[in-house]
Amino acid sequence: MLLYDSAVSGNCYKVRLLLAHLGVAYDRHAVDVVDRSGRAELLGELNPALRIPTLVLDDGRPLAESNAILVYFADGTPYLPEDSYERAQVLQWLFFEQYDHEPNIAVARFWKLAGITPSDEDAAGKSHGGKRALKAMESHLSATDFLVGDRYSIADISVYAYTHVAPEGGFELEPYPAINAWLERVAAQPGHVPISD
Amino acid sequence: MLLYDSAVSGNCYKVRLLLAHLGVAYDRHAVDVVDRSGRAELLGELNPALRIPTLVLDDGRPLAESNAILVYFADGTPYLPEDSYERAQVLQWLFFEQYDHEPNIAVARFWKLAGITPSDEDAAGKSHGGKRALKAMESHLSATDFLVGDRYSIADISVYAYTHVAPEGGFELEPYPAINAWLERVAAQPGHVPISD
Repeated sequence: MLLYDSAVSGNCYKVRLLLAHLGVAYDRHAVDVVDRSGRAELLGELNPALRIPTLVLDDGRPLAESNAILVYFADGTPYLPEDSYERAQVLQWLFFEQYDHEPNIAVARFWKLAGITPSDEDAAGKSHGGKRALKAMESHLSATDFLVGDRYSIADISVYAYTHVAPEGGFELEPYPAINAWLERVAAQPGHVPISD
Repeated sequence: MLLYDSAVSGNCYKVRLLLAHLGVAYDRHAVDVVDRSGRAELLGELNPALRIPTLVLDDGRPLAESNAILVYFADGTPYLPEDSYERAQVLQWLFFEQYDHEPNIAVARFWKLAGITPSDEDAAGKSHGGKRALKAMESHLSATDFLVGDRYSIADISVYAYTHVAPEGGFELEPYPAINAWLERVAAQPGHVPISD
């Protein structure tokens, strides 16, 4: 199995973290996240969105979108609940992550990593959107240990990926005690690996 | 069952379209998509993201995120494949829709509906991103009748919702013959309802 990967990408890290928990082996092909030239040649046949992570299964079939990859591998394991309502709640957090969280918190971090200086308006927009996402998480995690069903799942893996590095995008996490306690619970899970691995 | 809904929202339309196919009855509570005051009071206990669609099941449990709602109701029906790889492909398109498609094509349409005039830079960004999403769809649909497994599924329902009204956001669909043929195939499905219903 081959993962088109980037060491700094939280979206790729989600996949690496779940596969580490599951003990699944794979090869990694490093892809530049700043210089996107050559993406069509590299990924055009594998992923219409030309983004990473893109995974090629052992039989050659491709799979893309980090959260779709998480569901594929977690199904039938303790990392995705069996109950249909809890599964829907997991998906709710995965879509929240890609719509409300990642486009703000991950993009603000990417700008810093890539040395991009946004306009004041763009920076304010990401700051506002990211804080709104963090407040939604804080409110929810004030009443529960994990995002869904009081058990660690791919909802936590997905949202953890860019939350734990949010300070690299300028988001202070001190105002969010429930998020901080949750970050520690996630990092204490058996088989946890850091993003830098 | 109660759907917090908006007649113009493609995200809400996705849910209405699937429930029409399935013959599932529900009540609708109209929510303003321009004036967002009062959202916390209305949806705070139901959906941390405070967005619509938000659904309250018959037993009172809430469910949010349009694409998570689609999976919940489609599971076990012909609208979501049983095969694990095809299911992952459906999810891949659902995440593509929320990350690459909706934030460009739906937002450009929303600006026009709400009478918002974006900056030239913002308008160009949405135009570029939306066209990239349409090109990815066109490339894929040139080789297949539906997005996944050559059968109509919630992947088609989800991506159809904002594609068929893309011209309302300024996106011309004439350059995309495969998309146009697919739009006709989707609209010809038994039980199809228009967004205006």
